[in-house]
Amino acid sequence: MSTPSLENLIARLNRLPGIGIKTAQRLAYHILTLPEEEAEGLSSAIITAKKAIKYCPVCGNFTEEELCSICADPKRDKSVICVVRDARDVSYMERMREYRGGYHVLGGTLSPMDGVGPDDIRIAELLERVKKGEVREVILATNPDVEGEATAAYIAGKLKPMGVRTTRIAHGIPIGGNLEYVDEITLYKAIENRREV
Amino acid sequence: MSTPSLENLIARLNRLPGIGIKTAQRLAYHILTLPEEEAEGLSSAIITAKKAIKYCPVCGNFTEEELCSICADPKRDKSVICVVRDARDVSYMERMREYRGGYHVLGGTLSPMDGVGPDDIRIAELLERVKKGEVREVILATNPDVEGEATAAYIAGKLKPMGVRTTRIAHGIPIGGNLEYVDEITLYKAIENRREV
Repeated sequence: MSTPSLENLIARLNRLPGIGIKTAQRLAYHILTLPEEEAEGLSSAIITAKKAIKYCPVCGNFTEEELCSICADPKRDKSVICVVRDARDVSYMERMREYRGGYHVLGGTLSPMDGVGPDDIRIAELLERVKKGEVREVILATNPDVEGEATAAYIAGKLKPMGVRTTRIAHGIPIGGNLEYVDEITLYKAIENRREV
Repeated sequence: MSTPSLENLIARLNRLPGIGIKTAQRLAYHILTLPEEEAEGLSSAIITAKKAIKYCPVCGNFTEEELCSICADPKRDKSVICVVRDARDVSYMERMREYRGGYHVLGGTLSPMDGVGPDDIRIAELLERVKKGEVREVILATNPDVEGEATAAYIAGKLKPMGVRTTRIAHGIPIGGNLEYVDEITLYKAIENRREV
């Protein structure tokens, strides 16, 4: 039978995405059977990650330092910027280990239906980076869905007059798909076959 | 790109049962986007549940008080004991809201292959409760799998000479199934059709 703390834990787990009530119960019961150090480790991992992780002021990627590990890496080619929706998309891109440029995290995609306009995502910051003159190419790697395509088209329209090469990640990624579920080779092909917008 | 705290959180989540690496990543990224109070709530729910919840000294169920809510309830019929494997099985049984007796949590099932013998689960404690003379029926509700059946048969053999009515939950539950996935009506039928062992 349940107790208040158990009910609270189940309810909290149930609020996480993709965690239904049965899964939440199973996880909660599992947590109760963990050694105390394990439970404490999980508990403090949550709060530590939440408190330690900020956004890189240059690209918007996750970081615990002043700059993110990619912006701080002198071996990365800062003249190419790959534009993605979320900070998590950076780690999906990095899995292929072939891309050596930098990133720009938009923090969302244009979605007039949800009231997300150009000022609500980090487009101005991208244009600012390009204006500084060191960027020779911007690769638009938003997801190939309606919002992702619209966002790529909007940004391409802004970049064109600035004379910077603007490319779109190739449609090797299944239409309607998501960067999260694409294998490394498809991602590599998609970067390799990028085309002018 | 990942940071040490994020990697740690992902690894911790990945250790939970049924949470693969992709799900762990998705949950971790979600946790980073939560309001701080939400992340703190989840973190402290884990540690609070872990610290507050003990086992009822009578039946072995989860409790935060001296006795569990079922053992402490004067309206529950203490002359019937339903024997289950885990404390979580108690909450699965309680979902049907028809059973008004008590429970006895074994804390496992006999499994010679895994080195689990009669002294490793709470069988002696069950026999002790029956010896006190107030129990008129023991319902064996271990899962209908090899270990559950063997455990039920072993306990039935011990209870028979003590003259207490010993019943086995009916096989309305699919063989090879698990109490966790059975609907309330099937559970109710299974209790209703219980038979002498």
